[in-house]
Amino acid sequence: MRVLENIIYDELQENDYATFTKTLSEESLILFAASSEHITFSGLDIQSIQKAVYREDIGYGMWASSLISNAFSKVMPGPGSIYLEQNLKFSLPVKLGDTLTVKLIVKEKQANHRVIFICEVDNQEGESIVSGEAKIIAPSDKISLEQETLPLMNINTTK
Amino acid sequence: MRVLENIIYDELQENDYATFTKTLSEESLILFAASSEHITFSGLDIQSIQKAVYREDIGYGMWASSLISNAFSKVMPGPGSIYLEQNLKFSLPVKLGDTLTVKLIVKEKQANHRVIFICEVDNQEGESIVSGEAKIIAPSDKISLEQETLPLMNINTTK
Repeated sequence: MRVLENIIYDELQENDYATFTKTLSEESLILFAASSEHITFSGLDIQSIQKAVYREDIGYGMWASSLISNAFSKVMPGPGSIYLEQNLKFSLPVKLGDTLTVKLIVKEKQANHRVIFICEVDNQEGESIVSGEAKIIAPSDKISLEQETLPLMNINTTK
Repeated sequence: MRVLENIIYDELQENDYATFTKTLSEESLILFAASSEHITFSGLDIQSIQKAVYREDIGYGMWASSLISNAFSKVMPGPGSIYLEQNLKFSLPVKLGDTLTVKLIVKEKQANHRVIFICEVDNQEGESIVSGEAKIIAPSDKISLEQETLPLMNINTTK
């Protein structure tokens, strides 16, 4: 079990940055689609899902953005952070198998524990996929969490 | 099988709106967390997941935002849309069991098929959870898609 420790407001310095990397696997794509769907699930293959759910780049773009929120909640500032605002600009589509790296950079520390972050999500070629800025309330107290793991996902593709 | 038909640029009128409603179930929460995680999966109960993954409101806020992207890709304008920009302001936390309604309102039609949408996500009490604006390239051609369904998800919570 991994221990997650946050970075509190007083420890954050302008230009500090953190990164988080993840590949868009078929499993990630299916899980993301399923989490925000309200359709009935039944057996289907990945090609059909791509055709039906991700025909255009809307879903992929928000998946890439979910990596930003993940990086805030896990990496920097980590546990105890509160999300206030997020601006997103989608520059290029994400493709299945792409490996995305989120970079969060401390742009400005403000009053009342507010922190402005620059958020960059690039693919494995270094091309910008999503970029923007976020406003976060950084935690004031140190928190160490045992990093729990998630349930095993079984994706049943039988009809 | 449901047929998804898009709303093309020429059909969109200012002040037109569409809605999309979904409840934050345990399953949705787990699926969303798993889609952007890179930790190893193993058995765990929902309380542990909430403690570990969603201790604060960062993840929930982006889940609510994923409903916005879902509404764009499915409801209005629907298939053929391209996501350019999204601004998000997180006002209140989402709680497990909350039923969120996304409302997309056509604010302004611009040149080159660009459309500005107002995006509102409210809970079952009518309180604002997430709000913002998006810039979308609306489709120029009519598309009818057979709405495929997704694979059955089995969440294995045995240790």
